[in-house]
Amino acid sequence: MKKIKFAVAGLGRIGKIHLDNLLQMPHAEVVAVTDPIEASLQYARDQGVSLTVATYEELLALPEVDAVIICTPTDTHANYAELAAKAGKHIFCEKPLDLDLNRVMNVLQVVEATNVKLMLGFNRRFDQEFKKVKNVVKSGQIGEPHLVKITSRDPGAPPVSYIKQSGGLFLDMTIHDFDMARFIVEKEVEEVYAKGAVLIDDAIGKAGDIDTAIVTLTYTDGTMAVIDNSREAAYGYDQRVEVFGSKGMVQGNNNLHDTHKLHNKDGIHGALPLHFFLERYAQAYKTEIQDFVDALTSNENVPVDGEDGLQSLRIGLAAKKSLMENRPVKISEINSEVTI
Amino acid sequence: MKKIKFAVAGLGRIGKIHLDNLLQMPHAEVVAVTDPIEASLQYARDQGVSLTVATYEELLALPEVDAVIICTPTDTHANYAELAAKAGKHIFCEKPLDLDLNRVMNVLQVVEATNVKLMLGFNRRFDQEFKKVKNVVKSGQIGEPHLVKITSRDPGAPPVSYIKQSGGLFLDMTIHDFDMARFIVEKEVEEVYAKGAVLIDDAIGKAGDIDTAIVTLTYTDGTMAVIDNSREAAYGYDQRVEVFGSKGMVQGNNNLHDTHKLHNKDGIHGALPLHFFLERYAQAYKTEIQDFVDALTSNENVPVDGEDGLQSLRIGLAAKKSLMENRPVKISEINSEVTI
Amino acid sequence: MKKIKFAVAGLGRIGKIHLDNLLQMPHAEVVAVTDPIEASLQYARDQGVSLTVATYEELLALPEVDAVIICTPTDTHANYAELAAKAGKHIFCEKPLDLDLNRVMNVLQVVEATNVKLMLGFNRRFDQEFKKVKNVVKSGQIGEPHLVKITSRDPGAPPVSYIKQSGGLFLDMTIHDFDMARFIVEKEVEEVYAKGAVLIDDAIGKAGDIDTAIVTLTYTDGTMAVIDNSREAAYGYDQRVEVFGSKGMVQGNNNLHDTHKLHNKDGIHGALPLHFFLERYAQAYKTEIQDFVDALTSNENVPVDGEDGLQSLRIGLAAKKSLMENRPVKISEINSEVTI
Amino acid sequence: MKKIKFAVAGLGRIGKIHLDNLLQMPHAEVVAVTDPIEASLQYARDQGVSLTVATYEELLALPEVDAVIICTPTDTHANYAELAAKAGKHIFCEKPLDLDLNRVMNVLQVVEATNVKLMLGFNRRFDQEFKKVKNVVKSGQIGEPHLVKITSRDPGAPPVSYIKQSGGLFLDMTIHDFDMARFIVEKEVEEVYAKGAVLIDDAIGKAGDIDTAIVTLTYTDGTMAVIDNSREAAYGYDQRVEVFGSKGMVQGNNNLHDTHKLHNKDGIHGALPLHFFLERYAQAYKTEIQDFVDALTSNENVPVDGEDGLQSLRIGLAAKKSLMENRPVKISEINSEVTI
Repeated sequence: MKKIKFAVAGLGRIGKIHLDNLLQMPHAEVVAVTDPIEASLQYARDQGVSLTVATYEELLALPEVDAVIICTPTDTHANYAELAAKAGKHIFCEKPLDLDLNRVMNVLQVVEATNVKLMLGFNRRFDQEFKKVKNVVKSGQIGEPHLVKITSRDPGAPPVSYIKQSGGLFLDMTIHDFDMARFIVEKEVEEVYAKGAVLIDDAIGKAGDIDTAIVTLTYTDGTMAVIDNSREAAYGYDQRVEVFGSKGMVQGNNNLHDTHKLHNKDGIHGALPLHFFLERYAQAYKTEIQDFVDALTSNENVPVDGEDGLQSLRIGLAAKKSLMENRPVKISEINSEVTI
Repeated sequence: MKKIKFAVAGLGRIGKIHLDNLLQMPHAEVVAVTDPIEASLQYARDQGVSLTVATYEELLALPEVDAVIICTPTDTHANYAELAAKAGKHIFCEKPLDLDLNRVMNVLQVVEATNVKLMLGFNRRFDQEFKKVKNVVKSGQIGEPHLVKITSRDPGAPPVSYIKQSGGLFLDMTIHDFDMARFIVEKEVEEVYAKGAVLIDDAIGKAGDIDTAIVTLTYTDGTMAVIDNSREAAYGYDQRVEVFGSKGMVQGNNNLHDTHKLHNKDGIHGALPLHFFLERYAQAYKTEIQDFVDALTSNENVPVDGEDGLQSLRIGLAAKKSLMENRPVKISEINSEVTI
Repeated sequence: MKKIKFAVAGLGRIGKIHLDNLLQMPHAEVVAVTDPIEASLQYARDQGVSLTVATYEELLALPEVDAVIICTPTDTHANYAELAAKAGKHIFCEKPLDLDLNRVMNVLQVVEATNVKLMLGFNRRFDQEFKKVKNVVKSGQIGEPHLVKITSRDPGAPPVSYIKQSGGLFLDMTIHDFDMARFIVEKEVEEVYAKGAVLIDDAIGKAGDIDTAIVTLTYTDGTMAVIDNSREAAYGYDQRVEVFGSKGMVQGNNNLHDTHKLHNKDGIHGALPLHFFLERYAQAYKTEIQDFVDALTSNENVPVDGEDGLQSLRIGLAAKKSLMENRPVKISEINSEVTI
Repeated sequence: MKKIKFAVAGLGRIGKIHLDNLLQMPHAEVVAVTDPIEASLQYARDQGVSLTVATYEELLALPEVDAVIICTPTDTHANYAELAAKAGKHIFCEKPLDLDLNRVMNVLQVVEATNVKLMLGFNRRFDQEFKKVKNVVKSGQIGEPHLVKITSRDPGAPPVSYIKQSGGLFLDMTIHDFDMARFIVEKEVEEVYAKGAVLIDDAIGKAGDIDTAIVTLTYTDGTMAVIDNSREAAYGYDQRVEVFGSKGMVQGNNNLHDTHKLHNKDGIHGALPLHFFLERYAQAYKTEIQDFVDALTSNENVPVDGEDGLQSLRIGLAAKKSLMENRPVKISEINSEVTI
């Protein structure tokens, strides 16, 4: 089978993960990478990548490149995706495509017009725990879903400098949960009510953001979901989901470091959850990029497309509006005129 | 030590539990009971109660009675409690005192004026799981509480005839969770946002009620709670709580029938939660009534008083209003003029 | 239905439990008790027992007594059971009947001749965890049993003075596990290999006993069991069983104080097992005595009879012999001539 | 850092795993492989191995080879290891070196004389669950170890043809547990008592082997271990360990497929253990070979050496003798004259 030829743009933490995973896949070949930092390029060379270029434009100019992996800073995503589409390259882009709804819709139009594939990096969809929960739901074992509960807590807040340009908790962190809410029961969200607070770090509040939230989602068929978020869980990364339905309930739980149980006079003690996303989703990242490779080799639809990104963004924007106005906000209120 | 002399009014399911528990307590004596059904009176006689009377008024007329246990239908609670207070009897009354805020406030005024003790039957406060969680929170082991999550699902919906006069899901079922939300972190609720749906039985909807709900509470200090409810969990009574704070998180889980784990080719299987409140809270009912007896013998404050009932009712009324108007409602909006 | 009239001999810790439980049973009546200590007799009077007598003989002389509960010191059991049988009283006797095999066989002959019922207090058979495991095994859900694993560890060693007259670890403590091994799979033991050591307290070794043991049992059909014992588990009473069979495996686990899970930076922490037998088997004691009452009122066989006691004793004696001679010992080697 | 140059002999299931893992290690290079099957050689070529040779001798003749990985059939291990040692190559050899004690001792003498490193493939030592348990024990958190319990059950018996040449259950399967017993508490075994039965498949019995066993080990300091084995667990690979000590107890449990819990009317259901050693020990195989590479690059001792293999073999031979003679057997009885 023909190998797909990839170029990777951006070799930060997540770019390196995608690069390493691609290098292990029999039907993928990484023909070039770009990154402004020489050490990152050297990293790629050490892994056996022969061509390292200085600019994204040079990558796109390589005729042998079939697809680009965009792991550059968020504010370049829309532009780079658009350029790639126009260059006829398939695109895997880290989320979000952009924080501006109009911009995203423009990019999607270009992608559609150029007929390339665009996949967005909602990595949690590829996590075995969530996939298992989704499959149990889909199999009908819990009957009709009535309630979805998503817990998503980070082990620690990012720097305030990051938070300032992140789009805020809902577009930076909860957006994964909004996507999960749609994915896990395959329903569309109609209304959002968001409640948030600054309980961890006042500096986050001063930067105009919140660090703790409870968001209620109502699906178009009246079923409901609730998400709880915190930027800082003392015990590590907390990623759980529960779906309750007419015939039962299914939970996906955290992956712990190990299974040990220590019994002593103080109680029974066990290991913590895997510390953060790099550990918890290590396998999910592999599966994600493998699924992208497979979609290209088989010319099938990608598992997470631009529409998925658009919907999550709409929910996120609705959540922001809900928080500011302290009222439930319909997704239909969020359109191209909305500026937040 | 002097025994407290009790009279029990109403020998339905819950009245019999209180009677049985009182009969086992060294400092309590049941001197009389009343119930309209002869079989119930016979039950009491079989347990060794010597005096059974036809009316509540006859109970109150007995000079030796120190305290009454009111387990009669909800619409008699306010009136019976008032009469008991005027007769100088201490009162243990099943919740709610009344569904009308004005009426409750009137009763509490009478109780205060007559100086008798009034305890309300929020039995879950006496459950060992919730007490343990509360104690862990109170000890500071999770730091400052940020988020409270309460799951409360019944194994099956009551008859629609019951639902019609119940005050609705929020005043009948969620009111326990509103009390739990206040109890578990010792904070007052300031605002409520309630979302509900009819997902189990259309007849419930036709009766003007909902069967599934997600309720977000905001405490006065900005911390938040979320409650999820269902009238019908296929796997039985689901009663869990989770408190997340700055230094950690603590969960109280369901009590299962037993600890067995069966491993076979299909998976690992274990027992269901205890089926319903009679099983799950059997010990809590004992502790509850014991605490009432103790408060009387030691002349201390009762652990759940009229004010607790009033606050839960206010939250419940706010939740109803929130559901109807689809907006967050402040508790301060709920005053004596509100009629729902 | 006619009430069975009981007399309780011995009001130590376990005697009081049986007394309290009998007093709550509708078909049982405690007509008299005896104990050498006045405070114990007063305890019984406080519970409403009207007749307290000075000697066991006086108890037996009461014509209205249908059955005696023997909770006196072990060295009186055989004699008291024999006397009761001759007086035509049914007998519930705490284990063991005697440590001497001949003596036990003599008593059983007397009991058989007098046609009274004799039940032995192997309380663990009535524990809900073990009953559940047994029922799963019996239902065929694990297929043919191949391996039985019993863990039985006490939270602390008794005083050496007690150990000296206890018959040793195997007859005092493991004998419950020998009975469990027979009960859980309804098979008879054919051979025993016992390995023991003094790892907790040298004083136990000086008293001629061991404090830690692993005992392998072979059933007559070739299936096997293994028991591990310790006199001192730092984390409390450890009482587990596991049965492995051709179609699966089933485990019964410890009952914990509560279900709480505390997550903090050090790990996930939960409650300890219930501390000791009084806590773990509180409900089992009730069921046990209820089953005895039921056997008498319905004139059915008792659930644990003299033969069960005899078999456990034989296994215990074989274990002692095995330990001393460091070789597997057949149960058939243990007969009336054996003196240990 | 200089890369170590490896040759892999034997590309069966386990050989391929080692090859794949070596190819991902920065300090390892696979310069050649051998296998009698062309498809296996092609597999290696597809992974990028440039040199494939027809015989083991050709491998050894390559001067650039630093170390060989021996994954050929068991009956070649001793000979191949000896040849490698004489050729001055370091050796990683799958267990067992040989089933004959004399032969093993001869090989070890050759290895010692030639001063090459020899590591044996006791892969379970590198499993994160067992390492964690060992570390907890080593840290003193459970005090002095008193009892070790090892459960080791395969998901299905191998073909009888395999069993016939395997050396029997104790040398083929339990030998891993004997090594674990030594590893987990760092104590030497002094005595073995083995009990076994044919409960799964009569054909295994006809082949002169057993399929189910309980083995009691006594360490030189009097502490004890017990191992239970079955060739066929309906629920998959069961690999657990428990160490009980003076201050507490620690357990290592099975790794499950996922964390999902399905609650329905029949109970609470979860996933099975990972199916067999390839799944359970996937990471352990990586760590194992990485540790071998590290020992070579740093010129340190290997973590599992020839002496470890010798001791496990001695325990296994003692277990066989114990089973046949139905008596405890001292390890000291097992010397070069023993033929089983």
